[in-house]
Amino acid sequence: MTDNDYMQLAIAEAKKGLGLTSPNPAVGSVIVKNGEILGKGWHRKAGLPHAEREAIADALTRHEKSTLRGATIYVTLEPCSTTGKTPACVDGIIEAGIAKVIYGATDPNPAHVGGADAMLKKHQIKVVSGVERVACESLIQAFAKRITTGLPWVIAKTAVSLDGRITRPSGEGQWLTGPEARAEVHKIRASVDAIITGGKTVRKDNPSLTIRGEAHSAEKSQPWRVILTQSGKSSLPQDANVFTDEHAERTIIHEDKTLTQTLKALAELGCNSVMLECGGILMQQFLKQQLIDELALFIAPIFTGGPDHGFGIGEHLDHSQFLTNNSHQQLGNDILIRGILKKS
Amino acid sequence: MTDNDYMQLAIAEAKKGLGLTSPNPAVGSVIVKNGEILGKGWHRKAGLPHAEREAIADALTRHEKSTLRGATIYVTLEPCSTTGKTPACVDGIIEAGIAKVIYGATDPNPAHVGGADAMLKKHQIKVVSGVERVACESLIQAFAKRITTGLPWVIAKTAVSLDGRITRPSGEGQWLTGPEARAEVHKIRASVDAIITGGKTVRKDNPSLTIRGEAHSAEKSQPWRVILTQSGKSSLPQDANVFTDEHAERTIIHEDKTLTQTLKALAELGCNSVMLECGGILMQQFLKQQLIDELALFIAPIFTGGPDHGFGIGEHLDHSQFLTNNSHQQLGNDILIRGILKKS
Repeated sequence: MTDNDYMQLAIAEAKKGLGLTSPNPAVGSVIVKNGEILGKGWHRKAGLPHAEREAIADALTRHEKSTLRGATIYVTLEPCSTTGKTPACVDGIIEAGIAKVIYGATDPNPAHVGGADAMLKKHQIKVVSGVERVACESLIQAFAKRITTGLPWVIAKTAVSLDGRITRPSGEGQWLTGPEARAEVHKIRASVDAIITGGKTVRKDNPSLTIRGEAHSAEKSQPWRVILTQSGKSSLPQDANVFTDEHAERTIIHEDKTLTQTLKALAELGCNSVMLECGGILMQQFLKQQLIDELALFIAPIFTGGPDHGFGIGEHLDHSQFLTNNSHQQLGNDILIRGILKKS
Repeated sequence: MTDNDYMQLAIAEAKKGLGLTSPNPAVGSVIVKNGEILGKGWHRKAGLPHAEREAIADALTRHEKSTLRGATIYVTLEPCSTTGKTPACVDGIIEAGIAKVIYGATDPNPAHVGGADAMLKKHQIKVVSGVERVACESLIQAFAKRITTGLPWVIAKTAVSLDGRITRPSGEGQWLTGPEARAEVHKIRASVDAIITGGKTVRKDNPSLTIRGEAHSAEKSQPWRVILTQSGKSSLPQDANVFTDEHAERTIIHEDKTLTQTLKALAELGCNSVMLECGGILMQQFLKQQLIDELALFIAPIFTGGPDHGFGIGEHLDHSQFLTNNSHQQLGNDILIRGILKKS
C-alpha cells in the first residue's frame, strides 16, 4: 500500500459525509502504523468531531494509546489549527503522539492555510501535503467556493428532450425521463443544502423538491427549498406541496432579490452547495450571470417541440461557457451529462 | 460455425457496399461446403453483379465448377428472381448446382417476395429464411423504405450546444464540435445518396456538403446536394461552394416544393437515403411532418445561448416522437446520440 492507496481509503471515508456536513466540508482520515490500519473516521456533521478525531477515537477502541505513537495519519484536508465548534485537530494529533501527517488538499481559507504545518513541525511531526490532491480538492469544491467567494457551489440540473424542451405535448405524461434518471435526481438532491426554483415552476408543476426513495437517509436534513418570485408570496398557490408538506419549515421565499443576493443569503445560512431545479428563463439568467458551477443535464430520447426550452430563448451569451471534466452515462433510456463549467 | 456465424460473414461482406449501391441495397453472400468457405462476395454498384453472383465468381477463381455442387449459399437478402439490369440470381444459383439457400431478409417489394423460394424449391434446392433477420433487415432499411413508400430514408444530422443552439457568440469560432465529431459527419455523408440543406444555410455558412478526408473513397459518388429555397436561385450566392466547386453538377435547387415532393423526387432519382444538414427552422418542418427516420445528434460540451435553435422554436409537436434503438458514444469531447424515430 502506498501513500496514495491510504489516501484513497481516507477519500472513501470522506465520501460517506458528502452532503451531510455543511457548512463544513466532507473530510476522511485513516491512521496507519507498520502497514496496519489502526483506525478510520469521517466527519459526520457540523458540531460533531472532525475526521482526524474520529479516526483517533476509532483507533483507541481497539488499541492502547501507546500503539498510536509513531503512527502516520492520512487526512483528505489540511487539519484545522484553530478551535471552532470543536477543538483544533492539530492538538489532537500532537496529543496522540502521531509522527507523520499526510494530507491532500490545503485549507481553502487563506487565513488558515499552512497553520497546521507550522504547529505540527514545531512538535517534530513530519508533514506531507498534496497526496491525491485533485481528488481531495474535488471533495471540498463546494466548501472552498463558499469560503473564498461567499457564494455557494451551484449545480444546474435539468431534463430536456432531444430538441431541448422540458415539457411534452398536452395530453401526454408529465415526465420526459424514466425512473432511473429520476432516482438519480434524488441522489443529487441528497448532495446539496438547498434547491432553488422559480414561482412559475411551483405554480405549474407543484414539485415537492424533497429527497425521497433510496437517496433519502435519516442523517440528511431535507434541503432548503428556495422559491424565487417577483410577484410576491400571495401569487403562489398556498396549497402547494412546498408550503403544506411535513417539511414546510424548510421552504423559503425570496422576493425581488438578485440571484447573487439569493446565493449570498444561502451561503450565510451555511449552504455550501445549491441545486437549480427551475424552468428555462431562470436557468438562462443564472447562465448569463455566470453563476453556474456544475451541470447535471438529463437528455430524454424524445422529440416534443413546444415553447418551454430548458435554457430559455434569446440572445447569445457574452462568451461561450465550456463544460470541463465532463462525463456521460446512460440511466435507463436517458443520458446524463455532468461536468464543471469553465467561465470566461 | 453455425448458420448464424456464416450469415454474420455475409453481413460483413454486405457492409462493404453500404452507401455505394443505390438504388439497390447493400447485399453480401458467402458460399460454404463441408465447413469450408468456397467464396464470398458483395454487391458493389447498381449495374454490376449481385452479391450471389459475386460469391459464385469468387468461388470459381479457386475451385472447379463441380466443387460448388451441393454447397450452401448464405445471402443477407432474398435472391432476386426477376431479370433487371443483371440476370436473376436465382438462375445463377440453380446453374451453379447449389443445394441450399439461406437468406436473412425477405425482398421488401411485395411483388417479388417469395419468388425466389418457389423457383428454388422447384429445383429441389432447400430454402431457409430469417437467419439473422434483424441485422439483415437493418442493412436494407433505406432501400426497403423507398420501395414500400416511394420516399427515401431520412437521417437528420445536427450538432448542438448543451442549450440546444447551433451557433456561437460572435467573435468566436464557427465550430461547436471537435475534429472527431466532424470526421464522423463525413462518414455519415458517405452512407447517403443526397444531402438536403436550406438556402439560409448556404447563404450563412457556405458549406461544401461533400465527403472529405478518410471517409472519402474513389468508389463513392459525392451525394447530391439539394438546396431548398422559397426565394429562387437568384437569392442564393452564385459564388457559393456548392455552385462553384468540382462537384457543382451534383447540386440541385428545389424551389417551392413541399418537403414530401422533394423527398419523392430524390427517391425517383434513385436515392435510398438522404441526410438533412440544415438549420432549425427546416429541421422542425421535417420533424412536424414526421418525415425523419433516423437521428444523428452531436452534442458539444458548450453553452452558447443565441437565437439559433437546432430544432427551431414554436409549438409542441402533435405527438412526441420517440428515439428507439438508440445509442450514444463519445467522439473527442462531443457526444453522438443516434437512433431511429418512432412516429405516432
